[in-house]
Amino acid sequence: MLLSNWIVGIDLGGTNLKAGIVDTDGGVLHRLSTKTDSDSDTQTISNQILELIAETIRGAQIKESDILGIGLGSPGLVDKAGETILFSPNLPRWRNIPIKHIVSERFSKPCVLENDANAAAWGEKWVGAGKKVKSLVMLTLGTGVGGGIVIDNKLWRGANNVAAEIGHMVIQIDGPLCNCGNRGCVEVFASATGMVRRFKELLDNGALSSLKGSGEITARMINDAAIQGDKVSLDVIEETGRYLGITLTNIMHVLNPEMIVLAGGMAGAGELLMGPIRRVTTQRAFEASYQDTKIVFSELGNDAGIIGAAGCLLKELEISA
Amino acid sequence: MLLSNWIVGIDLGGTNLKAGIVDTDGGVLHRLSTKTDSDSDTQTISNQILELIAETIRGAQIKESDILGIGLGSPGLVDKAGETILFSPNLPRWRNIPIKHIVSERFSKPCVLENDANAAAWGEKWVGAGKKVKSLVMLTLGTGVGGGIVIDNKLWRGANNVAAEIGHMVIQIDGPLCNCGNRGCVEVFASATGMVRRFKELLDNGALSSLKGSGEITARMINDAAIQGDKVSLDVIEETGRYLGITLTNIMHVLNPEMIVLAGGMAGAGELLMGPIRRVTTQRAFEASYQDTKIVFSELGNDAGIIGAAGCLLKELEISA
Repeated sequence: MLLSNWIVGIDLGGTNLKAGIVDTDGGVLHRLSTKTDSDSDTQTISNQILELIAETIRGAQIKESDILGIGLGSPGLVDKAGETILFSPNLPRWRNIPIKHIVSERFSKPCVLENDANAAAWGEKWVGAGKKVKSLVMLTLGTGVGGGIVIDNKLWRGANNVAAEIGHMVIQIDGPLCNCGNRGCVEVFASATGMVRRFKELLDNGALSSLKGSGEITARMINDAAIQGDKVSLDVIEETGRYLGITLTNIMHVLNPEMIVLAGGMAGAGELLMGPIRRVTTQRAFEASYQDTKIVFSELGNDAGIIGAAGCLLKELEISA
Repeated sequence: MLLSNWIVGIDLGGTNLKAGIVDTDGGVLHRLSTKTDSDSDTQTISNQILELIAETIRGAQIKESDILGIGLGSPGLVDKAGETILFSPNLPRWRNIPIKHIVSERFSKPCVLENDANAAAWGEKWVGAGKKVKSLVMLTLGTGVGGGIVIDNKLWRGANNVAAEIGHMVIQIDGPLCNCGNRGCVEVFASATGMVRRFKELLDNGALSSLKGSGEITARMINDAAIQGDKVSLDVIEETGRYLGITLTNIMHVLNPEMIVLAGGMAGAGELLMGPIRRVTTQRAFEASYQDTKIVFSELGNDAGIIGAAGCLLKELEISA
């Protein structure tokens, strides 16, 4: 076993902090996950991340000195230099955390900080669904909607490292209010949060569902009820799929990528979601675009973030393409 | 005079076909323009283009054998190989014209075919407003709304050569019908055509304007009336600017370019249009993006298309970056 072939990949999420020990071929040796303490101060959050890294290394029975470095994927905006988590609409307490410096100092190893959806997009390009394409756009459909863009075999981060914020593309100027402060963003229609909001609206308006009286509704509950044939749940997933269809059409119009990869918890809805997406894109995108653009679900699933973050570190070290 | 330093740049538009003899530094030696015969068949359109090229060369008093090649910018979609004009929503008779082959055969010179807004974007990057930036997005605001994207010093055409169709990005799902068949595209709100439609709506609803009874209204008339203080004209330009502000915010969210360049007839409205654009982007885009993204008008103006098309030919021949 080549002990120096390991990277720690970290996927910082609104619900869970996930970590993995990843090899230079994108394989995952060991995984660890812990609940995100989203209400804490910056110091506590940083310590939680440091502890998670150390514990993951211990759990994999390797030494800290045996790792090549640490790749971090974080939700929200990362500064231009790739050092500080600036702001995340869904984690309001996470502001200006200079996490790259904190991590690389503690472990005396190189560290890269990347937007989480960028990292996941790079993971899919590196060893996942997008291995064979040169351009792809990734959408992570969870609490929020994240995006990652690969163009010409490279991540496109934008001039100030804030590109691919596809979740905040406006598709309905007078639509519902988004956490970012604007109205009608993709995220209010097509995130898990948006789907739950819409479901509750329908129930409040008297729609009959098997989930009525089930307490706190989650996207997973809607998904499970839809599979059992619950009409309201089916309708809400169908509607979410249509909004995603509009979103993907916009992506195809603007970027015309070879592939669009859908990931995140909502991808679990599978064909229930993909059906309306394909119908709307076929109807609305230009023929030259929809005929060839592959719309697929993530291959790496829950591992996309940690594998991608590790891949970003390798890319930075110029160890792999 | 180095006779072999000339390129013919052609800008095929819905209203005019423009041509220029361009040198390898982007200077224009000679210009020619003719009305577009948009109702003719493919054969007639092709002949009109060939005649325009020949006449421009004659007018510049150079010989056909002295040109390096011909660059063509065309509205609408160009096929993946860059040989055929597939389809233009605003020129319904232009379908499947294999213009690259026709032109290069007639003149026995290399020819490149590029989407017109891509060509204009490349012109601004080559010798215009974007000389010093690595990434820019160009919007051409005319009969339609075209787009061009430069990323990492290269035109991004997409996997099938249909990227940068920003005019057909949906910003209001249930908005007015667009020529492309969808609803609520940028083009229905922010093109000259869209602005005139909105102006007429307001007049029909009883708004009082100095243009009432002026016959066929054009964007230029609205612009001129606004400068004279006509309230309805000012309101319509302001509203168009706000829609463009949403559009630019979406571009900043998705691509975060260093610069956004506005061109086309409507750019003539100057600050009347730029004011609301800046207000909306400052309000809606992420701070990291709007603080640094330069929003400017085209430097090459009406020449952007011909200079850019010539630049695309040079790029193809690898004579210039």
